[in-house]
Amino acid sequence: MKSILTPLGPKADKDTVRRHNLSLVLRAVRDEGESGEATRAGVSARVGLTRAAVSSLVEQLMESGFLTESGKTFSGQAGRPGTALKVARTGPAGLGVEINIDYVSVCVVDLAGTGRVRQTEHLDNRGAPAGEVLARAARIAARTLDSAREQELRPVGATLALPGLVSGGSVRQAPNLGWNEVPAEDLFAEALTALRPGNPVLPVASENEANLAALAELWFGGLGDVRSFLYLTGEIGVGGALVLGGELLRGAHGFAGEIGHVVVDPDGPECRCGSRGCLEQYAGQTALLRAAGIDGSGGGAGVVELERRARAGDGRAVAALTEAGRMLGRVVSGAVNLVDPDAVVLGGIYRSLMPWLSPPADEELTGRVVSGLWSPGSGRLRASSVAGDAARGAAALVVQDVLADPVAYAEP
Amino acid sequence: MKSILTPLGPKADKDTVRRHNLSLVLRAVRDEGESGEATRAGVSARVGLTRAAVSSLVEQLMESGFLTESGKTFSGQAGRPGTALKVARTGPAGLGVEINIDYVSVCVVDLAGTGRVRQTEHLDNRGAPAGEVLARAARIAARTLDSAREQELRPVGATLALPGLVSGGSVRQAPNLGWNEVPAEDLFAEALTALRPGNPVLPVASENEANLAALAELWFGGLGDVRSFLYLTGEIGVGGALVLGGELLRGAHGFAGEIGHVVVDPDGPECRCGSRGCLEQYAGQTALLRAAGIDGSGGGAGVVELERRARAGDGRAVAALTEAGRMLGRVVSGAVNLVDPDAVVLGGIYRSLMPWLSPPADEELTGRVVSGLWSPGSGRLRASSVAGDAARGAAALVVQDVLADPVAYAEP
Repeated sequence: MKSILTPLGPKADKDTVRRHNLSLVLRAVRDEGESGEATRAGVSARVGLTRAAVSSLVEQLMESGFLTESGKTFSGQAGRPGTALKVARTGPAGLGVEINIDYVSVCVVDLAGTGRVRQTEHLDNRGAPAGEVLARAARIAARTLDSAREQELRPVGATLALPGLVSGGSVRQAPNLGWNEVPAEDLFAEALTALRPGNPVLPVASENEANLAALAELWFGGLGDVRSFLYLTGEIGVGGALVLGGELLRGAHGFAGEIGHVVVDPDGPECRCGSRGCLEQYAGQTALLRAAGIDGSGGGAGVVELERRARAGDGRAVAALTEAGRMLGRVVSGAVNLVDPDAVVLGGIYRSLMPWLSPPADEELTGRVVSGLWSPGSGRLRASSVAGDAARGAAALVVQDVLADPVAYAEP
Repeated sequence: MKSILTPLGPKADKDTVRRHNLSLVLRAVRDEGESGEATRAGVSARVGLTRAAVSSLVEQLMESGFLTESGKTFSGQAGRPGTALKVARTGPAGLGVEINIDYVSVCVVDLAGTGRVRQTEHLDNRGAPAGEVLARAARIAARTLDSAREQELRPVGATLALPGLVSGGSVRQAPNLGWNEVPAEDLFAEALTALRPGNPVLPVASENEANLAALAELWFGGLGDVRSFLYLTGEIGVGGALVLGGELLRGAHGFAGEIGHVVVDPDGPECRCGSRGCLEQYAGQTALLRAAGIDGSGGGAGVVELERRARAGDGRAVAALTEAGRMLGRVVSGAVNLVDPDAVVLGGIYRSLMPWLSPPADEELTGRVVSGLWSPGSGRLRASSVAGDAARGAAALVVQDVLADPVAYAEP
């Protein structure tokens, strides 16, 4: 019965405790600020540290530029004004770089989680060698970093959001980009460093884009109390992620969430992953446009056209969407039976296509979810509220590191 | 970004801290005892409390009958003998009651997790009303409790292991038993209490049987370093459970793990759950025996016959197993793509049928797991080492509660 034992670390020393408490206070101010105004008294009540301890920690966080004060507030204690605390709008920030099949989107997020700079370029990344695509992304990132500096933001790390299997800093496989074993972190970091001589080298991490889009949905979306959800994003392929109890499920090898490669028909069309009849072959953008008789080479324009035709009642467009919705519902019903999430969130191109995808998907789910807890009116199938913003999720992941240990990211 | 904040409890008071530490020490002795002999010094090093604090806690645990001492040991400190500590073989224990389609199995597990009493009765529970089945289980449980008392064991709670959707003390649906909305905990508790006048009422909990079998595998099986696995148990139906990072995934409504109702063929045979073409219809015991041309009414005897025929090279038996293995592999590949576990464990009737199920399942998995990390020789598909012992898992769940707060279970 090994698993019952709580993990036991060595006893924490004083320095570790203070760093931990600095993080607690910083995060408490960020969270209090969401619902109203943060005061030292409010933070003290929230984190369970004495008022004096909180004041000392706040002072250090202000000196290091993580917190600012802004006038008096009466919201803290009955009748006694406190000073409102805010997470700084300048200083440490995160850089997120989403490299997808037909666009690159870069953004900078500040400590409060607010997106502050965004640059997106639409282009087809499928033809070009991986090194070239990553160098192009680095150029966009360098320009974004210039903009961030003008706003006195100091990105302390970057996360790459990549449409494939990502682990150990490399893209193991990104079939829709045609990438295999691409050391993406190194290639991007080298290109970015070369573009910014004299600047400190930015640490670069990487993660699957659907995972990051799901985190963006969790952190910035309108999910309310939902803490467990399956996230599907319609792109050229179909990406997926699982958030369980507010935590991203990465899986034993970092490859969880690949719902796009769940088999629909074992003898179906060949998939780029090497298997046959994967969901992607029925509900990915390419398959959807093909079934609707729309030229898919124009990227996002094809989806706009699909939506236009469906809205106009075009039979072939509606049939293609209905069939894709049915396939989505069928595969998602299996996933719901397996992990029993609160909700299923559809992002990417699915967002605008919900009116046609949702009824057949809900019908499959209602018939196939064994708990009997799925019904068309349940609202458990919903559109992503942030359109699948992997770049923001990627940037916020860096910010999460800062919030977890601000001392490590104080101005050098 | 709400989720980033660590949950903050109120500050713990002294009494809470001592209770927590009693639990830490008790569990440390249990775990140390697994690999050798537990000493006060060894426990102190393990939990990070001073030697004096550990001695005081050990004293209290011995007085309450949770720990015993047994002679001198030299394994603790260099050259200095210590006194070996052991978890008591008497006192608080757990009762597990598995009610399955064609058997009831009851067991008592002691604080060390060892099974001490077992009573199993093979009978067909499908025909009888739920109340009658539960009353029968209560009679077996009462006899088991008598045996436990003779061993000076004192079960402090019972967990029912049930083959269906269990939540809030009731079986929402157990298609293979024909149960719907059965208040199983109450019915069982009433029957058991009536059988044991003058005894304290035993608290009764309930859980899906596959979930408990998976926990038994995690706690008592030979999984080694595997902390995340998908568990499938072949019974009349197909049960399933997901253990992620050493924790059972219960899901948002308690219904996770229902892999038996993942759809294989949307137009396939009707399933008792109300859907069509569920995995259960292809790889459950009933389907398997039917495909092999074996009379399934004899329960376990049919599976023994299937194995005998397959071993003898009977074409129809081998074909039925090959097809079932392929279906298992196909559905499991989707689950692996979704949650990326370390391993997939097959229990129940699948255990003895592995020689025939495993090759076709592995072939499907190798072709369809998108990470490319599945290969026939990987050992990631394995037989359950404890034959799917839901009753032991159920009993151990009670013991887990005792270990988490021994004070609450001290002799009254």
